[in-house]
Amino acid sequence: MRALASIFAATAYLSLSAIPATAQDGARDGEGTWITLGTGAGPVTSSTRSQPANLLRFGGHDYLVDVGDGTAGQSGKAGVQTKAIDAIFISHLHFDHTAGLTGILGLRFQTSAGDPLTIYGPPETQQLVDGILAGMEPGATANYGVAGAAPVDHRSGIRVVEMRDGDSVDVDGMTVTVRENSHYSFPVGSELAARFESLSYRFDLPGRSIVYTGDTGPSDAVEELASGADLLVVEMMDIPLTIERMIAANPGIPEAVSQAMQSHLSEHHLSPTQVGELATRAGVGSVVVTHFSGWEKNQPGHMRYLQEIAAAYDGPFLIADDMDSF
Amino acid sequence: MRALASIFAATAYLSLSAIPATAQDGARDGEGTWITLGTGAGPVTSSTRSQPANLLRFGGHDYLVDVGDGTAGQSGKAGVQTKAIDAIFISHLHFDHTAGLTGILGLRFQTSAGDPLTIYGPPETQQLVDGILAGMEPGATANYGVAGAAPVDHRSGIRVVEMRDGDSVDVDGMTVTVRENSHYSFPVGSELAARFESLSYRFDLPGRSIVYTGDTGPSDAVEELASGADLLVVEMMDIPLTIERMIAANPGIPEAVSQAMQSHLSEHHLSPTQVGELATRAGVGSVVVTHFSGWEKNQPGHMRYLQEIAAAYDGPFLIADDMDSF
Repeated sequence: MRALASIFAATAYLSLSAIPATAQDGARDGEGTWITLGTGAGPVTSSTRSQPANLLRFGGHDYLVDVGDGTAGQSGKAGVQTKAIDAIFISHLHFDHTAGLTGILGLRFQTSAGDPLTIYGPPETQQLVDGILAGMEPGATANYGVAGAAPVDHRSGIRVVEMRDGDSVDVDGMTVTVRENSHYSFPVGSELAARFESLSYRFDLPGRSIVYTGDTGPSDAVEELASGADLLVVEMMDIPLTIERMIAANPGIPEAVSQAMQSHLSEHHLSPTQVGELATRAGVGSVVVTHFSGWEKNQPGHMRYLQEIAAAYDGPFLIADDMDSF
Repeated sequence: MRALASIFAATAYLSLSAIPATAQDGARDGEGTWITLGTGAGPVTSSTRSQPANLLRFGGHDYLVDVGDGTAGQSGKAGVQTKAIDAIFISHLHFDHTAGLTGILGLRFQTSAGDPLTIYGPPETQQLVDGILAGMEPGATANYGVAGAAPVDHRSGIRVVEMRDGDSVDVDGMTVTVRENSHYSFPVGSELAARFESLSYRFDLPGRSIVYTGDTGPSDAVEELASGADLLVVEMMDIPLTIERMIAANPGIPEAVSQAMQSHLSEHHLSPTQVGELATRAGVGSVVVTHFSGWEKNQPGHMRYLQEIAAAYDGPFLIADDMDSF
């Protein structure tokens, strides 16, 4: 379903309006709907963009893809209560992508969610969930504070499935495949490299394939994963500006920490040009940019991002806002 | 600083507009500013109101008072990053009031917050925080995924102070006092009654006294705590409507659970009339209603709430929206 590619690369993004309209109509079975609940790049909070989170709706099911702080509230705006969530997919363990999990688990408990919930994530997701559940113990025991109320097990129905590079799983008729991306760069063979993986996800629905990069730098594995996908939901940052802002916001930061953060931002994220290059090499049908950090639409520097993507990719794309639907 | 009390009780709420203007100006030293970050009643999420959370700004410090899901993002809208938070006050361990704590701790870590953070809360707050910190272990160990980066202790500087009925503590020149309210009603002498307390807070600033009820039913202790306060920030629900919605949203809920939730909603929360009665008995100067569940401003049933409060209290009041400032 590759859309009409404009020969005028610099204006290609203008044609993207066709994409959300199709999905919002919900007319085509099996395509599902992808809603960008939170499009900001964490961990700095923004007045206009919620922390990273997405909602995938397909076949009567509701799935979260990353769960930054505020995911429960953003889901509520999409008309989906926490108890309706069927599964959660976590890309990596940075807290800007996971902190909202506590709200999902807690509010599900308080609203007497009966259905099981499976949490898919990278290695050590189990420990994340175990910690949250341990912290919930007092609140769950006190529960509604009613005399004589029967105890409720807040761990009931919560299942974790840890995934590693190349793993694939069927979820309600959707094939979900992960690859390890380049958001972490621990030395090959090191203990940390063995323990941790940052994942990108591919969701093969009956009528559409959607790839979500999570956070990543340039990565052959992600290009392979995204090959021929209908929709690429991709992270992007204005990396020099983000470094500049990070330094300005942390005047007293130790030099070693500052250097580590600069390395991280430079090597573990995608610039607009790299987004376009990834989309072209993978041959995807359309691109939705999220995890955005940079000049906003009403600021002078914004159009440059669109120009840089369009110079490297001649398909349709846009930079998503919170609550956009595709 | 009791404001002009209208003799026309039914229209008294109209005079409240003077309150936020004064506080927003920030002209009077020692009064601080109270910002309602999240005014919805959890655990059901709303498209217009974030989960319970407040920001108290005083003397160059930023404090959170309850931390529902989305608190980090709402704080960002107020221009306050998570690393700037000096202390957190938690009223009780229901997850709609605590789930955002994970985001505050996580995003502070990721933004290299150097200053300590004290978390004040009811008994067993330590276990809540310990669980969250245990869950953060993998993410903090992977950290930014940079080869050779020095490990950072994500527990460093995080301190918990558990408080019980009648406790008082000085925080940066502000006296903070708590009373146990009636949000829980475990049998006197039971193990659960000994373990758990739901707290209301009084903040005595040099120039203003602010009482935050948290969640509570009618309570002599809260009336005492609020006695003569300049500002009462009080929970309120349309209890019959909330029960009706709860039943409608849970068609298959076991009868015992339904009964427990109905008892909880009826006895552990305040109706509009009860809000007015509390305000009058305590003799407070003004009232800000939060933790709202009911018909919204543009819906027919809303004005009745104002009428019922005004019939019981002749001072100024309003039902706050998210991000209101007092």
